[in-house]
Amino acid sequence: MKVGIINVTGYAGSELARILYQHKEVDIVSVTGRSSVGKMLGEVFPHLSQVNLRITEELDPNVKFIFSALPHSASAEKIKNYIDKDTKIVDISADFRLKNKEQYKIWYDYDHLYPSILKKSVYGLPEIYRDEIESSNLVANPGCYPTASILALAPLVNNKIITNDIIIDAKSGVSGAGRALALKTHFSEMTENMLAYSVNNHRHMPEIKQELDLINPNLNTSITFVPHLSPMVRGILATSYTSLKENVLSEGDKGQIQLLDLFKDFYLDHPFVEIIDSSPMTKQTLGTNNCVIYPYLDNISKKIIVISSIDNLVKGAAGQAVQNMNIMCGFNEDEGLKQLAIYP
Amino acid sequence: MKVGIINVTGYAGSELARILYQHKEVDIVSVTGRSSVGKMLGEVFPHLSQVNLRITEELDPNVKFIFSALPHSASAEKIKNYIDKDTKIVDISADFRLKNKEQYKIWYDYDHLYPSILKKSVYGLPEIYRDEIESSNLVANPGCYPTASILALAPLVNNKIITNDIIIDAKSGVSGAGRALALKTHFSEMTENMLAYSVNNHRHMPEIKQELDLINPNLNTSITFVPHLSPMVRGILATSYTSLKENVLSEGDKGQIQLLDLFKDFYLDHPFVEIIDSSPMTKQTLGTNNCVIYPYLDNISKKIIVISSIDNLVKGAAGQAVQNMNIMCGFNEDEGLKQLAIYP
Amino acid sequence: MKVGIINVTGYAGSELARILYQHKEVDIVSVTGRSSVGKMLGEVFPHLSQVNLRITEELDPNVKFIFSALPHSASAEKIKNYIDKDTKIVDISADFRLKNKEQYKIWYDYDHLYPSILKKSVYGLPEIYRDEIESSNLVANPGCYPTASILALAPLVNNKIITNDIIIDAKSGVSGAGRALALKTHFSEMTENMLAYSVNNHRHMPEIKQELDLINPNLNTSITFVPHLSPMVRGILATSYTSLKENVLSEGDKGQIQLLDLFKDFYLDHPFVEIIDSSPMTKQTLGTNNCVIYPYLDNISKKIIVISSIDNLVKGAAGQAVQNMNIMCGFNEDEGLKQLAIYP
Amino acid sequence: MKVGIINVTGYAGSELARILYQHKEVDIVSVTGRSSVGKMLGEVFPHLSQVNLRITEELDPNVKFIFSALPHSASAEKIKNYIDKDTKIVDISADFRLKNKEQYKIWYDYDHLYPSILKKSVYGLPEIYRDEIESSNLVANPGCYPTASILALAPLVNNKIITNDIIIDAKSGVSGAGRALALKTHFSEMTENMLAYSVNNHRHMPEIKQELDLINPNLNTSITFVPHLSPMVRGILATSYTSLKENVLSEGDKGQIQLLDLFKDFYLDHPFVEIIDSSPMTKQTLGTNNCVIYPYLDNISKKIIVISSIDNLVKGAAGQAVQNMNIMCGFNEDEGLKQLAIYP
Repeated sequence: MKVGIINVTGYAGSELARILYQHKEVDIVSVTGRSSVGKMLGEVFPHLSQVNLRITEELDPNVKFIFSALPHSASAEKIKNYIDKDTKIVDISADFRLKNKEQYKIWYDYDHLYPSILKKSVYGLPEIYRDEIESSNLVANPGCYPTASILALAPLVNNKIITNDIIIDAKSGVSGAGRALALKTHFSEMTENMLAYSVNNHRHMPEIKQELDLINPNLNTSITFVPHLSPMVRGILATSYTSLKENVLSEGDKGQIQLLDLFKDFYLDHPFVEIIDSSPMTKQTLGTNNCVIYPYLDNISKKIIVISSIDNLVKGAAGQAVQNMNIMCGFNEDEGLKQLAIYP
Repeated sequence: MKVGIINVTGYAGSELARILYQHKEVDIVSVTGRSSVGKMLGEVFPHLSQVNLRITEELDPNVKFIFSALPHSASAEKIKNYIDKDTKIVDISADFRLKNKEQYKIWYDYDHLYPSILKKSVYGLPEIYRDEIESSNLVANPGCYPTASILALAPLVNNKIITNDIIIDAKSGVSGAGRALALKTHFSEMTENMLAYSVNNHRHMPEIKQELDLINPNLNTSITFVPHLSPMVRGILATSYTSLKENVLSEGDKGQIQLLDLFKDFYLDHPFVEIIDSSPMTKQTLGTNNCVIYPYLDNISKKIIVISSIDNLVKGAAGQAVQNMNIMCGFNEDEGLKQLAIYP
Repeated sequence: MKVGIINVTGYAGSELARILYQHKEVDIVSVTGRSSVGKMLGEVFPHLSQVNLRITEELDPNVKFIFSALPHSASAEKIKNYIDKDTKIVDISADFRLKNKEQYKIWYDYDHLYPSILKKSVYGLPEIYRDEIESSNLVANPGCYPTASILALAPLVNNKIITNDIIIDAKSGVSGAGRALALKTHFSEMTENMLAYSVNNHRHMPEIKQELDLINPNLNTSITFVPHLSPMVRGILATSYTSLKENVLSEGDKGQIQLLDLFKDFYLDHPFVEIIDSSPMTKQTLGTNNCVIYPYLDNISKKIIVISSIDNLVKGAAGQAVQNMNIMCGFNEDEGLKQLAIYP
Repeated sequence: MKVGIINVTGYAGSELARILYQHKEVDIVSVTGRSSVGKMLGEVFPHLSQVNLRITEELDPNVKFIFSALPHSASAEKIKNYIDKDTKIVDISADFRLKNKEQYKIWYDYDHLYPSILKKSVYGLPEIYRDEIESSNLVANPGCYPTASILALAPLVNNKIITNDIIIDAKSGVSGAGRALALKTHFSEMTENMLAYSVNNHRHMPEIKQELDLINPNLNTSITFVPHLSPMVRGILATSYTSLKENVLSEGDKGQIQLLDLFKDFYLDHPFVEIIDSSPMTKQTLGTNNCVIYPYLDNISKKIIVISSIDNLVKGAAGQAVQNMNIMCGFNEDEGLKQLAIYP
């Protein structure tokens, strides 16, 4: 199958090229960019020099599957041209993630001009929406923080064992801030440094709330979400704090086992989620599409703490996009995504 | 004044030597170690080669002020010999931090043999106990996480504007794990990595609870504390989540100003605490005794989020120990501690 | 084909498991360790939890191909038991790299007890010895520094265009120092740090000299080799300085083109060597078996400077071992080694 | 004494502010910038919030001593206005380092318009030119690489024990590339990475050659200089390779002792140079004005290898500038520069 990548020149785009290059069912035939049109992909990204492609302004019309790695707003503008054609699309931007178009004005500061397309799109978290993705032509690939957060919390919300007050303290590697230059992500400023940003004000918060509330409409979650930058390239570690309802789990070690089972059951048929009974490291997911989750029951405070770890550029972006393509096209769900983590 | 350092060979001990070497009122005359007896300090720590001292097994009896940087239990054993003599002591270990000796059995797995000394000791957080420190001969230097956490929460607890459910998500540089070798802190394992550890089970949790409950005995806090390791040497960033009581702060921007004022008032006469209205970075405290605090009122969720930042080896250990000495001896509180942060 | 890894618990061993797990022609059926016998591989290396194997003390006798990742001396002791059986072996240790057994006494401080096996072994640098490797049952996998250095210098030595005075200034990521704990490689000591070690005294120097002198026995090279540690996990960057003979290359830009062509010709049929006309970064080889080489002619000083870059754990260890196996067993030379670099 | 800093907003400028703030003999009364005029210094650099100064466009006319941290060419334009007034100046740019004005056209691509000022300036390496600096009103502060390189090589050149072929392989922390944003120094690109740049083509090469040739005009050195970026903020490690002349040092260990003595004699009265007999780490100089040097005699190859280490922003820029001021003004040479290294 011929695939194309719109805006290959960011980190999500280049990661897509890396993964798709070794996917057995597809050929990358066309990659576009905004700043580097005319250059070979290997000139912009030396590690992609074997991917023998020139960056063009527009996609080859023969592509049957499109990944858009454009920023929000620009992505919708481009994607609208491919709707109702014989093309399937995964959009990595936020343009089709939020169901309510008014939210775009509030959180992204633009008017969403394509509400009818919005209605057709499916939120591309396969562990929740695999069936819908299978029959969709437009999948909105989730944000990196929402992926780590929703996967950590969905089993609790679904099983109705927590109250609605949820705190998510997330730590991200710097590649999450993208390839655009900024003082905050200048090497000398960012290394040996740690900071919070967008304190309870980040665009990924309404996305997390929307999805958790769709799983359990009665809960009406109150989400407190604080993202942090950590001096590493890749990885998200999300530590989520919730309060257990009364009498839903046993006391003592038995409760912890029930909790683990509840998570394992929820993700039984999902190859990329691993439930463990110890604290995960971001490094064990580096380069992979895995989400590793550690749910922990604290019997004294009656809290459930869930620690989840992903590679923000893989399960948090390009890898999940390929997983979505695999489902949309009937390929094996893990095709192109079997690589183990690079460690150490 | 002649000072000595017991167990100079760890990071707290070497940091004490670094700071004290430039303190105008003292001379380091004696340093002891456990593994490197007989070596010059500069052989173990090249950056201290100008501090022309040999590591001995026992302290010079002429020292008038002692810093103990031994591990807990070993520290109490050593310190007991200097009590009731004409010597003042700051203990960097945990041996005299917890008021209730039973807590040592629970959290540190040993029987505290010196309850009478415990009673005489003062918890060395100068921003709370300056007067008591001034007249004490034995000060228990706070832990690194408790320093960052208590300073972040004390104004809220003291002003009785929050409920008792407190979550502290702390991120520490790796020097907090000390100089003893371990696989987790091996460079290749720890770099480009992030992880939680001792999930709600860390020894610093009862210390935080003790101190907050002493400030406001009626609150009876429930503390959820999760420490994390971040791939950097120095720095703690603590993100604390609390719930605002009703009708204690105004709505909107006015509430944020009231909150900032409340913090500024609380720390009015304390030179090492800086209250800011933006998110701090650990790097701006690197090498300094400062604690930078950002209190944030979220009007929608009615949460107060407090982000605090220190250098774990300075305000979190050796610097605070010197600050305590300064108070105990009537020196200027900031003597030896005026150095600005190394940045970038 | 059933393969086994002796001493899987170091970084070369775990990297072998990572690569071989995705190799189409082989199954890892047996892994041994020294310290972790009885544990599952995933307990020691979480990123290998999918490789469902228990670490044993001895190899399964059914393996047809063995990788030894033991340290030198221990490796020869183990390997001798498999010689003259129907088993092929790649030894990652230094035990069969040096042709002259006396060198082991000088550089490795032990008496080599198996000179007859030494004679049968082939130095496993496929770009030089592919034919010999093809028909060998025992291949000595080159050291990481020698791989980067010999590949950088072989075309110059072979074409006889340089004098015999060669300086190699190599910078390595910390994983090259292995998984054994040491103060120098403790995170807090090694990060934000750079140092030279084994100044012109490193064991890899005689290995480099041996191989360059075998390529051109008349040159009798004088090698000055200084390795450095750089605060990163993976990667070797070797900067080699040589003096051009007179009248062997043209003046000006033409000479540079001749130089590039000479390198490209030398590595014409070798898929893992890439010759470029700009300065390489270690990061573009991260996780791959590639060696990227930039030869530069300085017309004023009449020096040829060659900068070469590899991933020390892949082309410098496990990847090259798999490349050797592929050649020894008639598989495609790049089977299992097609993965692109993880970037950024 | 009232001092001013022109262009405080780069790393050299902010480092000057950090050091001068604690200098007993001076007050910083005026700081200028190009991009941040009107802001408080603490808004641009949070670690300087105690330095209570507003960034202005022009210097306060009352300053008696000026540091210029402008880029080359712009610096000369500004400095020319203060010549022949009652003001002393240290210029951190390259504008007055090279004696021959034609060199500026070749290496910096501009015409030097102030050759008469050039003649009056002194090269500010105090270990070589202390007397000249003492009586100068305009000191050209050396480059970071030249500082590490010249100090490593001057004793050899001065004692005439090496031949003229010198190779300098230098590794720098990323702060050397400044605060201006660039893709190469973007955190995600630069971390876990190592690369060479400006291969034998760097502007600091003629500066090194000029100074070594002034020390020994007969040698006419041939300098091969390759700088590298290492994934750390601060520090330069320079590894210099030279060839020993015949019969100038004894064989064996005795030669090494002679070599060390020769270096120690050369720097006898210079407090910031430390000669050691083991390999230095950059980290032991972090935040200090020290240069640590390890000269090594290799008896087999007859090479002398010299490894030198500095903090590029201190001894390589701001610290050396303050050292020059101290000499120019008759202060203690180490005033403001006594701080020990931050370690780990």
